[in-house]
Amino acid sequence: MTTLLTRWKSTRAFSLNIAACLSDEDAAAQSMPEASPAKWHLAHTTWFFETFILHEFEPDFQPHHPQYRMLFNSYYNGVGHPFPRPQRGLLTRPAHREILQYRQDVDRRIEQLILTQVSEKLTALIELGIQHEQQHQELMLTDIKHLLSINPLCPAMLYRSDGSITDQVSGTTAPLQWHQFEAALIDIGHAGSGFCFDNELPRHKQYVADFSIASRLVTNGEYLQFIEAGGYRNPALWLASGWNWITQQQINHPLYWRHADQWQEFTLHGLLPLDAHQPVSHLSFFEASAYASWAGARLPTEAEWEYAAQQAGPEQLAQLVGHCWQWTASSYAPYPGFAVSDGAIGEYNGKFMVDQYVLRGSSLFTPAGHSRATYRNFFPTTAQWQRTGIRLAR
Amino acid sequence: MTTLLTRWKSTRAFSLNIAACLSDEDAAAQSMPEASPAKWHLAHTTWFFETFILHEFEPDFQPHHPQYRMLFNSYYNGVGHPFPRPQRGLLTRPAHREILQYRQDVDRRIEQLILTQVSEKLTALIELGIQHEQQHQELMLTDIKHLLSINPLCPAMLYRSDGSITDQVSGTTAPLQWHQFEAALIDIGHAGSGFCFDNELPRHKQYVADFSIASRLVTNGEYLQFIEAGGYRNPALWLASGWNWITQQQINHPLYWRHADQWQEFTLHGLLPLDAHQPVSHLSFFEASAYASWAGARLPTEAEWEYAAQQAGPEQLAQLVGHCWQWTASSYAPYPGFAVSDGAIGEYNGKFMVDQYVLRGSSLFTPAGHSRATYRNFFPTTAQWQRTGIRLAR
Amino acid sequence: MTTLLTRWKSTRAFSLNIAACLSDEDAAAQSMPEASPAKWHLAHTTWFFETFILHEFEPDFQPHHPQYRMLFNSYYNGVGHPFPRPQRGLLTRPAHREILQYRQDVDRRIEQLILTQVSEKLTALIELGIQHEQQHQELMLTDIKHLLSINPLCPAMLYRSDGSITDQVSGTTAPLQWHQFEAALIDIGHAGSGFCFDNELPRHKQYVADFSIASRLVTNGEYLQFIEAGGYRNPALWLASGWNWITQQQINHPLYWRHADQWQEFTLHGLLPLDAHQPVSHLSFFEASAYASWAGARLPTEAEWEYAAQQAGPEQLAQLVGHCWQWTASSYAPYPGFAVSDGAIGEYNGKFMVDQYVLRGSSLFTPAGHSRATYRNFFPTTAQWQRTGIRLAR
Amino acid sequence: MTTLLTRWKSTRAFSLNIAACLSDEDAAAQSMPEASPAKWHLAHTTWFFETFILHEFEPDFQPHHPQYRMLFNSYYNGVGHPFPRPQRGLLTRPAHREILQYRQDVDRRIEQLILTQVSEKLTALIELGIQHEQQHQELMLTDIKHLLSINPLCPAMLYRSDGSITDQVSGTTAPLQWHQFEAALIDIGHAGSGFCFDNELPRHKQYVADFSIASRLVTNGEYLQFIEAGGYRNPALWLASGWNWITQQQINHPLYWRHADQWQEFTLHGLLPLDAHQPVSHLSFFEASAYASWAGARLPTEAEWEYAAQQAGPEQLAQLVGHCWQWTASSYAPYPGFAVSDGAIGEYNGKFMVDQYVLRGSSLFTPAGHSRATYRNFFPTTAQWQRTGIRLAR
Repeated sequence: MTTLLTRWKSTRAFSLNIAACLSDEDAAAQSMPEASPAKWHLAHTTWFFETFILHEFEPDFQPHHPQYRMLFNSYYNGVGHPFPRPQRGLLTRPAHREILQYRQDVDRRIEQLILTQVSEKLTALIELGIQHEQQHQELMLTDIKHLLSINPLCPAMLYRSDGSITDQVSGTTAPLQWHQFEAALIDIGHAGSGFCFDNELPRHKQYVADFSIASRLVTNGEYLQFIEAGGYRNPALWLASGWNWITQQQINHPLYWRHADQWQEFTLHGLLPLDAHQPVSHLSFFEASAYASWAGARLPTEAEWEYAAQQAGPEQLAQLVGHCWQWTASSYAPYPGFAVSDGAIGEYNGKFMVDQYVLRGSSLFTPAGHSRATYRNFFPTTAQWQRTGIRLAR
Repeated sequence: MTTLLTRWKSTRAFSLNIAACLSDEDAAAQSMPEASPAKWHLAHTTWFFETFILHEFEPDFQPHHPQYRMLFNSYYNGVGHPFPRPQRGLLTRPAHREILQYRQDVDRRIEQLILTQVSEKLTALIELGIQHEQQHQELMLTDIKHLLSINPLCPAMLYRSDGSITDQVSGTTAPLQWHQFEAALIDIGHAGSGFCFDNELPRHKQYVADFSIASRLVTNGEYLQFIEAGGYRNPALWLASGWNWITQQQINHPLYWRHADQWQEFTLHGLLPLDAHQPVSHLSFFEASAYASWAGARLPTEAEWEYAAQQAGPEQLAQLVGHCWQWTASSYAPYPGFAVSDGAIGEYNGKFMVDQYVLRGSSLFTPAGHSRATYRNFFPTTAQWQRTGIRLAR
Repeated sequence: MTTLLTRWKSTRAFSLNIAACLSDEDAAAQSMPEASPAKWHLAHTTWFFETFILHEFEPDFQPHHPQYRMLFNSYYNGVGHPFPRPQRGLLTRPAHREILQYRQDVDRRIEQLILTQVSEKLTALIELGIQHEQQHQELMLTDIKHLLSINPLCPAMLYRSDGSITDQVSGTTAPLQWHQFEAALIDIGHAGSGFCFDNELPRHKQYVADFSIASRLVTNGEYLQFIEAGGYRNPALWLASGWNWITQQQINHPLYWRHADQWQEFTLHGLLPLDAHQPVSHLSFFEASAYASWAGARLPTEAEWEYAAQQAGPEQLAQLVGHCWQWTASSYAPYPGFAVSDGAIGEYNGKFMVDQYVLRGSSLFTPAGHSRATYRNFFPTTAQWQRTGIRLAR
Repeated sequence: MTTLLTRWKSTRAFSLNIAACLSDEDAAAQSMPEASPAKWHLAHTTWFFETFILHEFEPDFQPHHPQYRMLFNSYYNGVGHPFPRPQRGLLTRPAHREILQYRQDVDRRIEQLILTQVSEKLTALIELGIQHEQQHQELMLTDIKHLLSINPLCPAMLYRSDGSITDQVSGTTAPLQWHQFEAALIDIGHAGSGFCFDNELPRHKQYVADFSIASRLVTNGEYLQFIEAGGYRNPALWLASGWNWITQQQINHPLYWRHADQWQEFTLHGLLPLDAHQPVSHLSFFEASAYASWAGARLPTEAEWEYAAQQAGPEQLAQLVGHCWQWTASSYAPYPGFAVSDGAIGEYNGKFMVDQYVLRGSSLFTPAGHSRATYRNFFPTTAQWQRTGIRLAR
């Protein structure tokens, strides 16, 4: 239990670490319906432990507050009606301070459980709670970044100085190379006894034809060439609904690029000159797809990505993890034989398997140890506020 | 200058008094595009003094912050492009604390001007700034009330305990009487040398036919009878666009009424049992008009209201001021001969004189001494979040 | 009865005359929710006679078709639920031909009533039906014009050749002169025994201050100067909501003007070169108001317009009628003492008396004899598809 | 060439046959942005022959009308800016009659080409034009059905009497059986020299695991059980975005079902009593998916469907074609190695391969001989107006 307790404690602490340089005001605001206030993330991850663990395992369970069950439910219909998502930024009460107290109370009680009730089921749920909180840690960062990007003062967070979180990497770009793979009937999906989400199961066979995959991500510099070549003005490069979307929304560069005398990029460190060597980031699926067309390539399927990631070492395929999530050509769908878990916890993944596309890898914002080669992230075609980029295939 | 300085200081202090029981989170949130965060009101009223007074009168004017000119401009096109109104709740920076510093800095400089530069023009602008801030004091209260009303926790402010602000009055209802006035060619509009807004001028003649006006406002109890008689389900009582509006928005009671086992009303003191004796409040023009039809009466014109208010004493016409703003049947329009002031300050009133209706009187939330018999408040037909009620005429 | 019968017959015939050069397709299409198909106008005006006259006066009334009561009801809640207005263009059945049969059947039965049942009430309702149909004759023309204006083929109607309907007038512009009127307590509203709509009553007193009014309408040439002087780019000229509207809708010229190498205007005769001498037409209230501000003038109130029209002959005030409806500064409101008629017929005017502005005069599209000096037309501030223009006051 | 000429002529004639019982009004109306007027379909299929064949092969090509190129372009950006899709119902000109003349003129010229210019490229384009027209024949029927369904008169088309088109089939339901298939590495996609669309290529390998597929489609009677069991009120059965959609749109039965005293279904033959034996039809992907969940099954993938259809005879798998298109669980995506054709014709399929789901089989409305086992139809998850149904798998 010591390891689990340690991991659980450090995960809970890291969420507070992310929130530490936010004012109460920063932590309460919501910049768009898809995003949530940092305060809400802090409460919701706590709600998850309270609802799915304390409620079940505590002998004389009493909720920390009778209305938190509704206020901090995200989308679990099995747990009653959630508070409307687009209004989360209006929950000025409970105060940030009260939510920190909520965390302390639930943490104390969870620790008690871990120390006294050893069971496989409890362990599995604690692990799920850890993984769930790690997902929200990344969302806290992308949501905060989006919020601050709207502010004309272009505020910077001070994450870099503490070393733990950064939104820029140093280094220059190696030449792009293509790594070729032979057609094969392969196994896809999670294997072994470590944690995985339900959407990574069951492991199953897929046939992949010959393909090549790029040795690294597309850079800002390369993407700038696409822009300068008129990429956003040429409908032949775009999926039809993507073309409609960029036309109606008047999109002509990545979400956080700014064009003044020279190109700049808004980051968690404030507004910086555009670095041509950084992997291009905060792109929608539509933009990734159009760039790939322009480059005479395509996006990899998730099977190709997973297979390549497991066959090739990082010296061959750089930036697989830790820079940008990589859009794949694969629509998010259940694996053959996928089964939803019983109860409200079963709403975790399955009900979102439609009209979204799979991303693989991980990003600068993903907590260490959270992702793996079989991990399936997913967002709709127009999502830009995640740290999403491009690895080409052909 | 002492009187002006004293009034100006107490006005500035009263804004802080209103904000005093708000957390930083409360002060930063915006519940709908028509409302603004309390923090924004504190900044904008300061911006008004900085932009229209310091900028003009300080010899070596330096802005407190170069971007506040844009961030806290409400709608003055003559002062550049304002920050988009629906996004004011996203301005987590500058912090609440920084805005209090902004107020202190500007206050210090304004006080210096008042003490050293006596001029008629400066005095007039200080007076306008005071009146402007008083308008925003009422908006702060209605905006906070709206924000808190959305929170399922139904939070209460602690205004009542400090005695200065209340959202409920005690007492019972006197029987409604009708006071009759003879037809006359009357003078309407502000007279004398005291302060008034430009929209109260010029004083001019209007002819009013015979009319009667009610001795008091319509009560919650009376309005409940309208509801119970099916008032919200009978199209014959409603203006056509009002009927469309309540149908589409599914409106069937005043904004802050809640129907559980019994009727309740959300107030700044939290959720209270509905008090049948309170004047009914937070009604749209459409609801006021439908109620009047149902009661076999109508809304007074603004000329009738002003004439009656000036002819009749408070023992005849109760609740003229200090309870609810009273919807009139008069569309908000310039008085004959109305002239817009020069420069950006001229955008104060004139450009809103379309598609709104005039309200007369004042409300529980109106700062003492702010209103007068010739005062013209105005809102669109669907506005509900102001403290608005009904005085009948016929 | 002969005169009434003759007038009624010629009114009914004129509607068919308007529709005569429309194909079945032209007559069935609806270009926007505010407009209706010509076929629908033909049916609705017939429905009016069937519902308010045949239904009441025919001894053994049988509806022509049981569902027409719902299909061709415009907005009378007292006659059940109307078919949704924005979908009128989807009513391909009943066919145009069937609607002409509907007209024939109802006409035959109405004629029978006129010849056999003389009563004051019947006569009044027939007269109302005639006036109602004349209103829809003008709407047929403006709705057809709007429909055809969207077609890239710029189709022309052939009305000019038959002499009865035209969308252009010949002649040049006389210099604009100002006619001055002294302040007076005047009588406004319809007098005498002739027909008027309920909204023109009761005749009542109003006080008007000194004013001047222009001798003719503003021309295309004058309006072009406003455009070329940047009128559509200067917020100081516009009401606030008007500025928002032109900005969001990207409006920068009158509805039917087209800018190619030179300015053109779409008319019922097709696309014509812009004629600087024509009165400018198809303007919203907001555009009329902005032009007036730019010209250092204002729009007249409806009382001023009515008073001037009755005091001054056409040699002094040209183009009072028969060119463009003239926007006034007056919001559409009930006259003091206005009473709604009993029953569904009472829904005719009263329930629209909010958020609209009054237009006076008449237009090229108004049937002969339909308007008069006390006539009150009304549209919302953004309506452009009516034949609306500007007469200045100051 | 005779065969091609004959097929081409009969295809062109069948379009006119479909339109034959439509009035000019029926043929011109557009009931929603996704649908098109019948007249437009008649013109657009002709435009396809004119643009991609006559324009290329006629020595002295002159367009039939200079603006038809723009008016009847559907979505080919390579052929200039199409007329806005949602406004197709406003194109009352050119008249229906003129479009028939357009067809005659183009038909005469195409026939001339077929008779005089034999080439592989011409033949391939004629074939593509035939297949394209057949697709629009089905759309004409679904679009007409949608238009008429909105009309409270519930009009019937007279297709049944002429024997060629029907919207109901007779017969009763056999018990549902499950046919099992072993896991295999199979070949998917079109083989052989016959016509296929680009999206059916290239033929390629896919691995399918063991699966069972239902012997027939789900019936109205079975779907009614799902409704009566609360299927539309149980979020656990629905994909998250599907649940939001039915909630917001208040959907609780298939598009054309009507609930009066008993259930009825609107068809091209008018309103009929619901026939429990008919395959349930006009369902969205979301509804198909929810039903499958409720039935303890799932939708087949397109590979499973294609494999089963080719392995099993119609006595085992009934209703594969000719009743309802069958939703699959497969998102519409390019096959591995898919390549877009050169030029504007390349816009045919590829650019729609996102956010849509594949349907297999064919429907009562599909022209004879148009579909095949490898055929890939596709629509978004909310499309209901196609003749779409459910075949279960597990």
